[in-house]
Amino acid sequence: MEHQVEMVGRAFVDHYYNLFDSDRVSLSSLYHPTSMLSFEGQKVQGVDEICSKLKSLPFGQCHHVISTVDTQPSPFPGGIMVLVSGSLHLPGEDHPLRFSQMFHLIPIPEGSFFVQNDVFRLNYG
Amino acid sequence: MEHQVEMVGRAFVDHYYNLFDSDRVSLSSLYHPTSMLSFEGQKVQGVDEICSKLKSLPFGQCHHVISTVDTQPSPFPGGIMVLVSGSLHLPGEDHPLRFSQMFHLIPIPEGSFFVQNDVFRLNYG
Repeated sequence: MEHQVEMVGRAFVDHYYNLFDSDRVSLSSLYHPTSMLSFEGQKVQGVDEICSKLKSLPFGQCHHVISTVDTQPSPFPGGIMVLVSGSLHLPGEDHPLRFSQMFHLIPIPEGSFFVQNDVFRLNYG
Repeated sequence: MEHQVEMVGRAFVDHYYNLFDSDRVSLSSLYHPTSMLSFEGQKVQGVDEICSKLKSLPFGQCHHVISTVDTQPSPFPGGIMVLVSGSLHLPGEDHPLRFSQMFHLIPIPEGSFFVQNDVFRLNYG
């Protein structure tokens, strides 16, 4: 059980940042109408608002490098909590930006998960 | 509702780090038998194991300074998700350690909350 939570969490993280770096608009498939995103303190809710926010970020191409992934089962049945730390590499920038991101994943009947809670923060030194 | 989630989350964060810095053993009051802590990748569960882990940290006096607190309502009824970033100041150390910590708070009948999920990570530059 614990092992499965860890495997699902890591697979989700790989999938999420792979989509983010290669085809950001397709991240919409991972959110639901109830989903919430807090991005650097700005809160948006629902698939459309979240995707607008992600599309409006002031960089096109980017590359996430993951440092740590911690997972725990949520008390919400079948849910998974994930805390990610890593760095965001932007073209033409020498210094990557360190970030932390928290996800709360909720199962859907098809055997997959959607992101109910998503909080992103850059870590300033 | 959103405002209340934010107020409760911030009050919890102030309380948690105040206890941590002044009377670490009393943090036991914030955990339940089902609680989980991942500390720098090490997982422990339950009040006793969590408090043993916190007591065994290789520093006595410490001081947390909070930089950001993000809160969202959890899909678990009445639950609150919290992501904290901040720095940990240790006596005799010139450079504070940056950290991120995620909490999932669950309401208890007395009108208070306990920590069900707790993930702590230092942010290396």
